[in-house]
Amino acid sequence: MTERIVMAYSGGLDTSVAIPWTKERTGKDVIALAIDVGQAGEDMEQVRQRALDCGAVESIVIDAREEFANDYLVPALKANAQYQRRYPIVSALSRPLISKHLARVARELGANSIAHGCTGMGNDQVRFEAAVAALAPELTSIAPIRDLSLTRDVAIEYAEKHKLPIRQSKKSPYSIDQNMWGRAVETGFLEDPWNAPIEDLYEYTQDPTIEREPTEVTITFEQGVPVAIDGVRMNMLDVVLKMNELAGAQGVGRLDMVEDRLVGIKSREIYEAPAAIALIEAHTHLEDLTLERDVARYKRTVEVEWANLVYDGLWFGGLKRSLDAFIDHTQEKVSGEVRMTLHQGRAVVTGRRSAESLYDFSLATYDTGNTFNQDSARGFIDIWSLPSKISARRDKPEL
Amino acid sequence: MTERIVMAYSGGLDTSVAIPWTKERTGKDVIALAIDVGQAGEDMEQVRQRALDCGAVESIVIDAREEFANDYLVPALKANAQYQRRYPIVSALSRPLISKHLARVARELGANSIAHGCTGMGNDQVRFEAAVAALAPELTSIAPIRDLSLTRDVAIEYAEKHKLPIRQSKKSPYSIDQNMWGRAVETGFLEDPWNAPIEDLYEYTQDPTIEREPTEVTITFEQGVPVAIDGVRMNMLDVVLKMNELAGAQGVGRLDMVEDRLVGIKSREIYEAPAAIALIEAHTHLEDLTLERDVARYKRTVEVEWANLVYDGLWFGGLKRSLDAFIDHTQEKVSGEVRMTLHQGRAVVTGRRSAESLYDFSLATYDTGNTFNQDSARGFIDIWSLPSKISARRDKPEL
Amino acid sequence: MTERIVMAYSGGLDTSVAIPWTKERTGKDVIALAIDVGQAGEDMEQVRQRALDCGAVESIVIDAREEFANDYLVPALKANAQYQRRYPIVSALSRPLISKHLARVARELGANSIAHGCTGMGNDQVRFEAAVAALAPELTSIAPIRDLSLTRDVAIEYAEKHKLPIRQSKKSPYSIDQNMWGRAVETGFLEDPWNAPIEDLYEYTQDPTIEREPTEVTITFEQGVPVAIDGVRMNMLDVVLKMNELAGAQGVGRLDMVEDRLVGIKSREIYEAPAAIALIEAHTHLEDLTLERDVARYKRTVEVEWANLVYDGLWFGGLKRSLDAFIDHTQEKVSGEVRMTLHQGRAVVTGRRSAESLYDFSLATYDTGNTFNQDSARGFIDIWSLPSKISARRDKPEL
Amino acid sequence: MTERIVMAYSGGLDTSVAIPWTKERTGKDVIALAIDVGQAGEDMEQVRQRALDCGAVESIVIDAREEFANDYLVPALKANAQYQRRYPIVSALSRPLISKHLARVARELGANSIAHGCTGMGNDQVRFEAAVAALAPELTSIAPIRDLSLTRDVAIEYAEKHKLPIRQSKKSPYSIDQNMWGRAVETGFLEDPWNAPIEDLYEYTQDPTIEREPTEVTITFEQGVPVAIDGVRMNMLDVVLKMNELAGAQGVGRLDMVEDRLVGIKSREIYEAPAAIALIEAHTHLEDLTLERDVARYKRTVEVEWANLVYDGLWFGGLKRSLDAFIDHTQEKVSGEVRMTLHQGRAVVTGRRSAESLYDFSLATYDTGNTFNQDSARGFIDIWSLPSKISARRDKPEL
Repeated sequence: MTERIVMAYSGGLDTSVAIPWTKERTGKDVIALAIDVGQAGEDMEQVRQRALDCGAVESIVIDAREEFANDYLVPALKANAQYQRRYPIVSALSRPLISKHLARVARELGANSIAHGCTGMGNDQVRFEAAVAALAPELTSIAPIRDLSLTRDVAIEYAEKHKLPIRQSKKSPYSIDQNMWGRAVETGFLEDPWNAPIEDLYEYTQDPTIEREPTEVTITFEQGVPVAIDGVRMNMLDVVLKMNELAGAQGVGRLDMVEDRLVGIKSREIYEAPAAIALIEAHTHLEDLTLERDVARYKRTVEVEWANLVYDGLWFGGLKRSLDAFIDHTQEKVSGEVRMTLHQGRAVVTGRRSAESLYDFSLATYDTGNTFNQDSARGFIDIWSLPSKISARRDKPEL
Repeated sequence: MTERIVMAYSGGLDTSVAIPWTKERTGKDVIALAIDVGQAGEDMEQVRQRALDCGAVESIVIDAREEFANDYLVPALKANAQYQRRYPIVSALSRPLISKHLARVARELGANSIAHGCTGMGNDQVRFEAAVAALAPELTSIAPIRDLSLTRDVAIEYAEKHKLPIRQSKKSPYSIDQNMWGRAVETGFLEDPWNAPIEDLYEYTQDPTIEREPTEVTITFEQGVPVAIDGVRMNMLDVVLKMNELAGAQGVGRLDMVEDRLVGIKSREIYEAPAAIALIEAHTHLEDLTLERDVARYKRTVEVEWANLVYDGLWFGGLKRSLDAFIDHTQEKVSGEVRMTLHQGRAVVTGRRSAESLYDFSLATYDTGNTFNQDSARGFIDIWSLPSKISARRDKPEL
Repeated sequence: MTERIVMAYSGGLDTSVAIPWTKERTGKDVIALAIDVGQAGEDMEQVRQRALDCGAVESIVIDAREEFANDYLVPALKANAQYQRRYPIVSALSRPLISKHLARVARELGANSIAHGCTGMGNDQVRFEAAVAALAPELTSIAPIRDLSLTRDVAIEYAEKHKLPIRQSKKSPYSIDQNMWGRAVETGFLEDPWNAPIEDLYEYTQDPTIEREPTEVTITFEQGVPVAIDGVRMNMLDVVLKMNELAGAQGVGRLDMVEDRLVGIKSREIYEAPAAIALIEAHTHLEDLTLERDVARYKRTVEVEWANLVYDGLWFGGLKRSLDAFIDHTQEKVSGEVRMTLHQGRAVVTGRRSAESLYDFSLATYDTGNTFNQDSARGFIDIWSLPSKISARRDKPEL
Repeated sequence: MTERIVMAYSGGLDTSVAIPWTKERTGKDVIALAIDVGQAGEDMEQVRQRALDCGAVESIVIDAREEFANDYLVPALKANAQYQRRYPIVSALSRPLISKHLARVARELGANSIAHGCTGMGNDQVRFEAAVAALAPELTSIAPIRDLSLTRDVAIEYAEKHKLPIRQSKKSPYSIDQNMWGRAVETGFLEDPWNAPIEDLYEYTQDPTIEREPTEVTITFEQGVPVAIDGVRMNMLDVVLKMNELAGAQGVGRLDMVEDRLVGIKSREIYEAPAAIALIEAHTHLEDLTLERDVARYKRTVEVEWANLVYDGLWFGGLKRSLDAFIDHTQEKVSGEVRMTLHQGRAVVTGRRSAESLYDFSLATYDTGNTFNQDSARGFIDIWSLPSKISARRDKPEL
């Protein structure tokens, strides 16, 4: 039997051409696999058909939106995952999910390789291949663009020559990856980090400077997971879609940054992630109300590590999974409501409440009835200061 | 000779009454010391005179604004210090400076104690006393409000009875601390964290929702320190004042949070810190351009620790000083320019450039001329994935 | 009804006198509670009777050795807990267990306070009271020695005057705390950290310099827990007792250190912990064989934090419990055998094997048959070195 | 002019054959560079001549022992660097030094490449090439064994055929790397981690089980650096040589471990590092006496990071250099004396003293005259326990 390869298929120019190209170069039959992670865009049935038209021996479409929301976005939200303080690791979250389906389909359909459409300069190649290695170590990975010399110019020419059913026959100025957690845009003029982004780049978010009425929204969390918006219960998928709509309409979630790629270079990236940014902001405020101080402080460093690991393609690695056990444990009491105003690019929390609150009015109030034992403070300070005091006797600092 | 005590004097009701009250209760002569850390408000000469009128044996006013900017705000900016992701530790920065002057004056004028106007429920008592212990361990600390039963009601009554020159004879609804790095407000109705703040709370920032033209500003940094705005060189003090003006006018820097105090309770806090928030945002973007990835990643956890330590009153402790050595070393190349748009509550970086940039166009571009060796990627991924792959052979994860 | 207090009772002079002394000073009835955590020494029934003879209204003895081994020593071993690189936090592990029983008995018998025999200078007072606060926040804590002026001299005099059934009527030169995980000794001449310990201090360990035959022992672990010695299955309690015997006879586990107490001072401590030191050594070697590199590296910093937290009395705090979730997850594959030679004070691992081993002979061998793809190395190094290389182009380091 | 390559030359079979082999395969002239880092063994002049005899166009020998001791071992000791708790990163310390000389000589003599004798499976290839990339990014790196198919069998055959002046014509059973900080041994039968090492492996250490008299030694440190042994001042080089002699004679410093290599595999390693292990033990005890608690605690996690970085070949990277700034700052007061007994494989500290000691007898003693204010403890515990107490009110833990 001819060897088979399962290719992550987007429906776009590159992966469409990659189907016959890979067949030609490797002799393997190509199975196309398109995964819906809420990237919107085309009808998935059309995508499925196009792969066949391009020469795939089989073409499979999977709606993984619920799975993506529940198994990938929920952990990311619990971890408040933002790489370099900002980027909610949008693409880094979809890659392991897609890889899992690639590996599963490869096993089910007897393929011995997977393929993806990444270049050799970016993070996503690592994420695909590292995820597959961690799930199905017997599979090999092929990247037609990186390994089989499929450049963009070659792809356009090849598509025209072979009359492949690709509408896009000119090079778009934008390189885009998107899913329901956000959208990433790279483009030529932004490769100078001094150049400002322009309005034309954005699709998920409206211009934040346009005058409009603020939107107030109340998000209910249970154990770190958003379960209702304005009192209407919904699953994570619908929470994300709803928040993309509400926050996107207010211009919330635009990011512009110079980013440290895993492959060792810095790149300029534009993101928009309205739901992600708003939900993380809400979630952290509820944590402020419900986590013990020591937990909150330590969790911040765990969050940094978690985001780095996932950014670096190690979703299925042992450390990421053990950190999840920590994070899940911290979320047991992160239940309650957060009220947030979305307006002019800002997502501002204005209130938070919880049956699991650790805020104790009687200890915190400056009014009568306060039960805080102020006498304890002197003793506390004596002992808290003692190491510095002993050092000062030794070091005799100048004043 | 009568024993002497140096009291941190603000000119307000509490510390004004504390002068005669402390003299009565302890028998010690009180030297008043007022420090200008850019808190604006009253004329400092009036403050100085008022202390004398309240019974101080000496009254000293020090303009420490330059010192505060250079020796306290610069390190905080280099550390991007924000407690709990948000609060730029405004009060926590002024306390060690004031304490240093208290200790110095105490030594110079032969006092054996210092005093401050804090209650026993907050962080600032710890910061004052821990700082003094770390600088002049022979001094004792007194807190009239905490230790000598000087409540607010008692203070008002005492002031009226003794005709002290205090204008404020009613309890203000707001408890405020402010300096040039920001302003903190607590008040009764905000003690319910579900209640939203109102416009009346703010002084440093205009309402961000009012329509106005955006402000574009370019900040020049040298080794992590802002040294010019829009090309005009100025010292840190003037940078901060200027940025407070520009960012404040655009409603930048409002914060509303539930905070974990060092003394073990949670409290609701409202802050406004226009310069701090805008400068930290600018500074982190320049770091993104000029720091090596590993440095940037590790520095984030150091920043969390630094902010915790300073929040916890350990400014003069050994660990804070050793972390400063680390941070200073990281800042050697953090020089360049950041362009920022201030508008409607947002401080958005739109460009950054530097002679010390580690962004390499020829490695990052997707256009022709890229010099990144894509062949290296396969080998990198092989080895990067190897531990997960070996684990997968052992663990045989289900798909 | 008279108010009641549950006192942690050791049977020694201090807590024996504390029974009537506390009754006198507080008017509360004292319930004595003695916990067997493997401290050996006296018959527990005699201890129980002595409390009654000293005036306790009730006297309870609990054999908590199994509970201590399973619920306290197992987590400590999984965490390889050694404070300051050395001390296996012997006393810090027993305090939360004793506190739990104090709180439980207090609730069951209607007491509103607990008491312990600690001074105000040490860690154990914090551990007792912090644990009780974390379990039964309605209870108050009393420390007769610290709070009710019960000094040692007073205790001896009081015991003689009231003919309390205390044999020890002279001050022992040693202050000792011990349980099955180890033994701590403090004594006057050791308060100079330059003075060497003497042989007379030790009870759990023989002189390591005496010539004797080495002992070889094989320890079997399942998921991080030792379950057999030399192939004989036994529970954790028996593992610890057996290893104390074997390692103690070879002089393994003596420690001499200057320690940073939670209360801010340094103290000189002598410990002996034969089972603890030998088991931790064995456990870490099995981890080296079975943990992924990233997990092992990160776990080391978690271990430091865990040991600090438990040392600091925060056993029942939220952070310690969340870190346990992380650690437990890492231990899932830490199963296998470790062969160890105990001899002349050393516990040396000489072999380790596991069905869960991540050591891959075919990748590691230098002999023929190696399957490591050496071609990958070049690409790996290219990308691994890239950030340093880019920096070098900027920084032009001198050679 | 013919292109030139500078090769790290050991004098052994592999690098001797690599000289003509590399010339043949690349056409480049080979400059041999042998660095003395205290690896003992052959006369360096013979080594120099052999390179010429093998066809090197130039042959250079550098005695870098002082440089190695001062610039590499001192920082490692300050960092108490032990990878995976044990290995004092012996080889990882010499590689950057050798690389620096390779890069310097390459620049001085107009070479455009460097070469080293590592395989593609180990850490050292990364360390050489990463160091060169960080110092002289214009140079390329060649590994004849990895890149030019120079296997051991090929090397023996080639040497015989070309009558190269190599004595060793059979494959030694041991693969060894050594310098003054320690010695690493790998060999076939040890590739099963269950097999115990045998006495024949060791050269730096005597059998620890042989009966002999203990050796007592006093080491004086100044700012973290050992400067005298038994009162005799000497430089770091002589300290290391002396301690290798004293500790080695007592069998101190043998290590047997399964190690996580940077290239993703686990390997079995045997080390002996008598001076390193004894000096690190002494140094940490002096730190226990002179560092503030917070510094000591934080430094432990920095030490783990530092050892990982250097193990991973990132000696010249930005993060390692910034961590050095932290570590150097912590060492300012690490001055004093440590008394240590070396005996039967153990290096046991029995006393430590310092003019910079933070141990305060008057605070620590249990005798009369103690100045610790025990009244402070209650207040401290109240506030220290408060977060747990508030949580307990919420969580109502079962007892």
